[in-house]
Amino acid sequence: MATIKVGLGKRSYDIRIQAGLLDSLHKELAARQLEGPAFVITSPRIRRLHGGPVLRALQNRPESVRFIQVPEGENSKSLEMASRIFAQLIQAGADRSAVVLALGGGVIGDLAGFVAATYLRGVRLVQIPTTLLAQIDSSIGGKVGVNHPLGKNLIGAFFQPSLVVADPEALKTLPVPEWRSGLMEAIKYGVIADRRLFAFMESYLDRLRMRDMSATAELIESCAAIKARVVSRDERESRLRMILNFGHTVGHALEVVTDYEILKHGEAVGWGMLFAVEHAQRLGLLHRRAAQRVKNLVAAVSLPALPALRTRDILAAMQQDKKRAGDLLRLVLPVSIGKVMIYETNDRQALAESLKACGIVA
Amino acid sequence: MATIKVGLGKRSYDIRIQAGLLDSLHKELAARQLEGPAFVITSPRIRRLHGGPVLRALQNRPESVRFIQVPEGENSKSLEMASRIFAQLIQAGADRSAVVLALGGGVIGDLAGFVAATYLRGVRLVQIPTTLLAQIDSSIGGKVGVNHPLGKNLIGAFFQPSLVVADPEALKTLPVPEWRSGLMEAIKYGVIADRRLFAFMESYLDRLRMRDMSATAELIESCAAIKARVVSRDERESRLRMILNFGHTVGHALEVVTDYEILKHGEAVGWGMLFAVEHAQRLGLLHRRAAQRVKNLVAAVSLPALPALRTRDILAAMQQDKKRAGDLLRLVLPVSIGKVMIYETNDRQALAESLKACGIVA
Repeated sequence: MATIKVGLGKRSYDIRIQAGLLDSLHKELAARQLEGPAFVITSPRIRRLHGGPVLRALQNRPESVRFIQVPEGENSKSLEMASRIFAQLIQAGADRSAVVLALGGGVIGDLAGFVAATYLRGVRLVQIPTTLLAQIDSSIGGKVGVNHPLGKNLIGAFFQPSLVVADPEALKTLPVPEWRSGLMEAIKYGVIADRRLFAFMESYLDRLRMRDMSATAELIESCAAIKARVVSRDERESRLRMILNFGHTVGHALEVVTDYEILKHGEAVGWGMLFAVEHAQRLGLLHRRAAQRVKNLVAAVSLPALPALRTRDILAAMQQDKKRAGDLLRLVLPVSIGKVMIYETNDRQALAESLKACGIVA
Repeated sequence: MATIKVGLGKRSYDIRIQAGLLDSLHKELAARQLEGPAFVITSPRIRRLHGGPVLRALQNRPESVRFIQVPEGENSKSLEMASRIFAQLIQAGADRSAVVLALGGGVIGDLAGFVAATYLRGVRLVQIPTTLLAQIDSSIGGKVGVNHPLGKNLIGAFFQPSLVVADPEALKTLPVPEWRSGLMEAIKYGVIADRRLFAFMESYLDRLRMRDMSATAELIESCAAIKARVVSRDERESRLRMILNFGHTVGHALEVVTDYEILKHGEAVGWGMLFAVEHAQRLGLLHRRAAQRVKNLVAAVSLPALPALRTRDILAAMQQDKKRAGDLLRLVLPVSIGKVMIYETNDRQALAESLKACGIVA
């Protein structure tokens, strides 16, 4: 059983990680005074898979428990869907004592988090991530939000949960591409902050691929600890938190130019990491052998092929990044395994060469 | 020239109060590093009245300035309108360096504040209130939000501005009912926290009615100082901030049962204050003479007549209050002029009697 604390003064919270934890959710809530009517926001599929234990755990409390279901998929991350959830909360008479439980992957976490952040100017939120990616990344740190018809993740807030409950058992039913997507994000944590974690993934990749519970729990703990540390020091992304964007500048651009239809998020990040180590190596920032280790591990997790893409489209999409600084692109580049730097550039020629060299464009 | 500081650690900000301040808005922004492209959210009417000085002041900066206009009135406080503003921000390429300026009354401040709180997870916000009510109350303290079709102010955030600029000159064009509405809210401040302010209003009501600039500026300063002090100590309304709801539990209920169509907010609060002093007096909490002074001052500002209302409708609306504690209604009752207490009750009979005694129901 691991408990990782996200230290943010009065808004500090625990991340609890243990196989089977969903069955004792009521105890986790009670231990933190998270009483009050529970509103579980989830999708029909996740409810079928994991709603049973959650309901059994919660129905013994004196407070009511209610499920609010939204369709699977990115389209649910909208102001319109948030508004429909608000309607259900209002009709159920939810007041400030309500507790919103986000049961699902990144979409559910972001949407339910946005609802909790803005309903009555904020009610308590418990993240119950059911994907590897959400357990190690998106459920931690308070980034919540929805999409706008004109762009993804443009509307949102920094709103910390009161608790994160990560049950590795819940990952057994995860589709393979989702699992790989999570492993890619785990590689990211190794490269930016923890060479021991990176080496662990190199050594135990077979067990991780088989979803061995013990190896999986260790992986989640290591990643969550890094995320917690970074968020504690830089909640609102002024500087340090940017290192979490390793692989993401190009990764996001690839998602944009492929209309979010071909690549899972983690797969896009995998390609983005290949670009970043290539670029870092070419700039003389990263040793060739370290770059090769990253390439090998990404390849071992396995990346899908990309369709034919144009360099200028990718560069244009990179230029749209929320985190750019004026005209300069901001890249997170590794200098060794476990250490990265922020690198600002407008050298489009050099970027184009690395995009080609790492195989993103032909 | 008055500067009142809202002390909230790193998120502290100034409230600047001076006649003619709109003309030097650029200096106010520059002094606080509020550079970056400016997006002025306002209504067509407010733009005609006050857009000129704002534009002249801002167009000398190197950064762009753009007006985003929304229709007057409460209907603009919606997720749909926020979404349209997001679209304009996105299309204008607004990034995290953007500064949102809310130029208008409470509706504009709430809506533009919500947009600033949630666009890219938060961009800087400057409140430029143009009504008395907004200058002394709604622009200060970070309560922002929109309405839901099923209820008012149910969606929002606590999001502090970076600066509040209150120009009493801007109030000269305010319609009389709006002016009175602001004076009612000023009476509230006197009763809850400042008997000197209350006495000032008793003595100078004629000058205030004529909108004498010097008396008006003094009034705004006194009220803003109280709001700033309360918000500094209790940003998220855990306890102290509730005293700001003096007159508001019944006031809100009156707005609800009259469908927000008959009463200005301050007028509803005026009736709410009459109820509160009546109830406090009946409970033996407030001396008859103090109660009479409040009644006299509210009457001198002048209250509109109410239509025929039913006690049970008002009580039901009170029961819907966001700030209720379970089954108990929470009332802010004065114990003297300048001091209030939080009183929790479920004695509907006593409430009904006070509603009748103060003239709200026949």
